[in-house]
Amino acid sequence: MRVEIWGDVVCPWCYIGTTRFEKALAGFDHRDQVEVIHRSFELDPGHDKAHVEPVHKMLADKFGPRGPGMDQQVARTAAGEGLAYRTDRQVGSTLDAHRLLHLAKAHGRQHRLLSLMFETNFAQARTIFTHDALLHLATRAGLDQNDARSVLDDPDAYLDAVRADEQEAARLGATGVPFFVIDRRFALSGGRPVEAFAQALSTAWSERPLAPAAPPGTVCGPDGTCEVPHPDA
Amino acid sequence: MRVEIWGDVVCPWCYIGTTRFEKALAGFDHRDQVEVIHRSFELDPGHDKAHVEPVHKMLADKFGPRGPGMDQQVARTAAGEGLAYRTDRQVGSTLDAHRLLHLAKAHGRQHRLLSLMFETNFAQARTIFTHDALLHLATRAGLDQNDARSVLDDPDAYLDAVRADEQEAARLGATGVPFFVIDRRFALSGGRPVEAFAQALSTAWSERPLAPAAPPGTVCGPDGTCEVPHPDA
Repeated sequence: MRVEIWGDVVCPWCYIGTTRFEKALAGFDHRDQVEVIHRSFELDPGHDKAHVEPVHKMLADKFGPRGPGMDQQVARTAAGEGLAYRTDRQVGSTLDAHRLLHLAKAHGRQHRLLSLMFETNFAQARTIFTHDALLHLATRAGLDQNDARSVLDDPDAYLDAVRADEQEAARLGATGVPFFVIDRRFALSGGRPVEAFAQALSTAWSERPLAPAAPPGTVCGPDGTCEVPHPDA
Repeated sequence: MRVEIWGDVVCPWCYIGTTRFEKALAGFDHRDQVEVIHRSFELDPGHDKAHVEPVHKMLADKFGPRGPGMDQQVARTAAGEGLAYRTDRQVGSTLDAHRLLHLAKAHGRQHRLLSLMFETNFAQARTIFTHDALLHLATRAGLDQNDARSVLDDPDAYLDAVRADEQEAARLGATGVPFFVIDRRFALSGGRPVEAFAQALSTAWSERPLAPAAPPGTVCGPDGTCEVPHPDA
């Protein structure tokens, strides 16, 4: 079974929702047969890469005096999940982070790198918006430093993969993140309670589709040969 | 809508079935909203990389005198689809080809590279089993030559991605290829007729699931902010 999670590394509800999902997954009987894939979704796709600012300033600019209070509200929810959450963190473009997460996916390091990004941004309020910071996290996640640098230095590397993820989210009807999709059959939006994720996993498992058999003579099997029932016909 | 196609570059029915699928897709009204992803499935995962032999010899070893006739039967079916198909081609390990197809996927060149591999192997009976040959095809597909060489030279590059595709096929119930999955809801095995693919695309389209709305206060929207309906609560 496959769970795809669209999210952004600066999205508070992605941080909380992904943690809740992982709690549900840890308690799921068939967790060994669940593959989790993180997909790109920039909250602010046009964000100027050079522009990094404190979150409380961004919120105050958008919402006025009540802005910073909104983030403190989310901080209380995060604390309820046992998550450190600092409101003095910064916000900037996440495009390079997403490109790097695609490299990490290719090397089986995606979950580790995303966890480090969440922790660095939300729990430590340290920057994830410079190439130096991203390179450091990539290395800690077990990626080859030269591979990571090569991706960061080439703005086109994995750009199509990021855009494909984002277009796919739109096609599937996502209007915000986190957005969870199980086997392309069940979708959940937002930071649902652990129980909601547990229920969705159970339902999706019990309703797994089975693949239909192929008609004879049209399929090549794992023994390296192709069925041809009437070779002399 | 997403169509995933598991197959191998030396699998005759994958060559024929993928061509038939593409004919169905070309006639599908919503083809612009269909993403096609090719996934790895080695017919012979343990194939010694150094061992390359004529297909007719492999078939004769496995099936005796009737072996080569089986491939001639498939050649007639291929001709019926307008496909050149040479029975004097070779067979070898496809692991490196699959690893390279994952690199091509990251750069939006997967379909082009796979088409070149099918053409080189089946229509021209030229080798796709050496690094030189693969490097040449990668360059023709628009990949950066150094990137391609770096992947071919590192036997671990994209190895996990190949294995993940193969494990996913097993989880979904595939016992052979080609194996077509639409939105993880509909599956077809084997080289079905064009009409079968057209019907599957139509059915899947008309039954697309819609994403549920998230409860207020649990989702971060594309404007870069997160809904918190009662910031002072």
